[in-house]
Amino acid sequence: MSIWFTEKQTPNVGITCKVNATLHVEQTPFQHLSILETEQFGRMLVLDGMVMTTSGDEFVYHEMIAHVPLFAHPNPQQVLIIGGGDGGTLREVAKHPAVQRIVMVEIDARVVETSRQFLPELSSALDDARAEIRYEDGIVYAAQHPNQFDVILVDSTEPIGPAAGLFSRDFYQSVFAALKPDGLFCAQTESPFFNRDLIRRSYRDIADIFPIARLYLGSIPTYPSGLWSFTIGSKQLDPVKPQRLPESQGFRYYTPELHQACFTLPKFVSDLLLP
Amino acid sequence: MSIWFTEKQTPNVGITCKVNATLHVEQTPFQHLSILETEQFGRMLVLDGMVMTTSGDEFVYHEMIAHVPLFAHPNPQQVLIIGGGDGGTLREVAKHPAVQRIVMVEIDARVVETSRQFLPELSSALDDARAEIRYEDGIVYAAQHPNQFDVILVDSTEPIGPAAGLFSRDFYQSVFAALKPDGLFCAQTESPFFNRDLIRRSYRDIADIFPIARLYLGSIPTYPSGLWSFTIGSKQLDPVKPQRLPESQGFRYYTPELHQACFTLPKFVSDLLLP
Repeated sequence: MSIWFTEKQTPNVGITCKVNATLHVEQTPFQHLSILETEQFGRMLVLDGMVMTTSGDEFVYHEMIAHVPLFAHPNPQQVLIIGGGDGGTLREVAKHPAVQRIVMVEIDARVVETSRQFLPELSSALDDARAEIRYEDGIVYAAQHPNQFDVILVDSTEPIGPAAGLFSRDFYQSVFAALKPDGLFCAQTESPFFNRDLIRRSYRDIADIFPIARLYLGSIPTYPSGLWSFTIGSKQLDPVKPQRLPESQGFRYYTPELHQACFTLPKFVSDLLLP
Repeated sequence: MSIWFTEKQTPNVGITCKVNATLHVEQTPFQHLSILETEQFGRMLVLDGMVMTTSGDEFVYHEMIAHVPLFAHPNPQQVLIIGGGDGGTLREVAKHPAVQRIVMVEIDARVVETSRQFLPELSSALDDARAEIRYEDGIVYAAQHPNQFDVILVDSTEPIGPAAGLFSRDFYQSVFAALKPDGLFCAQTESPFFNRDLIRRSYRDIADIFPIARLYLGSIPTYPSGLWSFTIGSKQLDPVKPQRLPESQGFRYYTPELHQACFTLPKFVSDLLLP
């Protein structure tokens, strides 16, 4: 028997993966959630039919969304994660000894609970003593907590469904306000091959609000086109330059050299960012 | 009506693309060849069921296999392309004014003829006055032409079928001999996510034969995992450092800054290259 899960990443292209079993399927109050056991990538978290993360390639996304902004800050003590329910981003944030408090605001408790059950290598750090998990709207939380955070990570789903507001100009304003005077934030901003309008718009909005805006890239096989962008808005610090070296060697994608190189963009990507 | 072409990139994962029409299908003496009109990527060349190139993303592969080695050479006059029947690599080589002669050795004339008919934006430069197209075995040609070329580009299909010999140690020895004393060569060497053994082996073989071996990466959505590797073997020149600046602005992926950055590897990729 051969079972295949196919995600239409655009109306005209998709990824298809051999599935050994559906470990969990439910409709939460916010979205359709499933955990598949795939042959190529191991366990896969799927929300509303879109691959969110897999055991096989999650290290790229989680290391890159966490370590580039965190190593760009000399002393990131207070960190806010918006979204990130699978726990992978928090796991990477927790690797920084400077971090004193990690607030994770995830709108859908079922994502966290399901990750705890089926993705322990991602969710284990949710029990870190510095972690505070809140189930509420990250947009509201950011607006209500001005001047509190050194680093904010927006680990959202695609800009449809529950995460649409996380790509709005108003939200970026709230994030700016929630950061301390030398704070910076990072958001996943989709594929430069397939989501050019979104990248243009979010980059322009972030560059309007923050003195420094920079986009960087990582390679994630299960995400549309395999090439993924992250955008940083920073109040003071230059995000291209790591301020500290890793304390441990436990990274599989991030290196201090790659930190700088990942901001060097192919021409068609830097062209997207021109005013 | 909805028609989809699916390439199983490994036994357990594939890419699936909406197809508007099959423009051409044939069995050549060497391989199965088809040209599809896809909605996402435009025209697509498929050999033995594997995507070779598409109008939509061919610029990445062809710019990266040609310009990184060519700009690493101060005066590339004599260039050999092995494979490359669609003409895209030759088109990029022809953009270098220093180039005096481009020998392209393609084993399958039907690839060239079909590209001339259906992929004119790739094949147009095949009529360049400096181009010499030969339909023979590139392995034999390289072995019979010692000390003739400044740059050799191995633009092959996957290491199964007609291209298997292009990933062999004996072939790398012939390429070494075919290069002038300051020559360098570049080969496409598959995906670091899906072809780790091949990368380990080809890198080790190239590093055994050439004084300098370096691997670099490019992002190609229609290739397995979206992340693709190229390996350079060089007799003298450091391939990381561009020796010249582009004369024109006609590139969509390559920039001199990216030339250097593309050699900065994610940790799991550089770990593959450890002795």
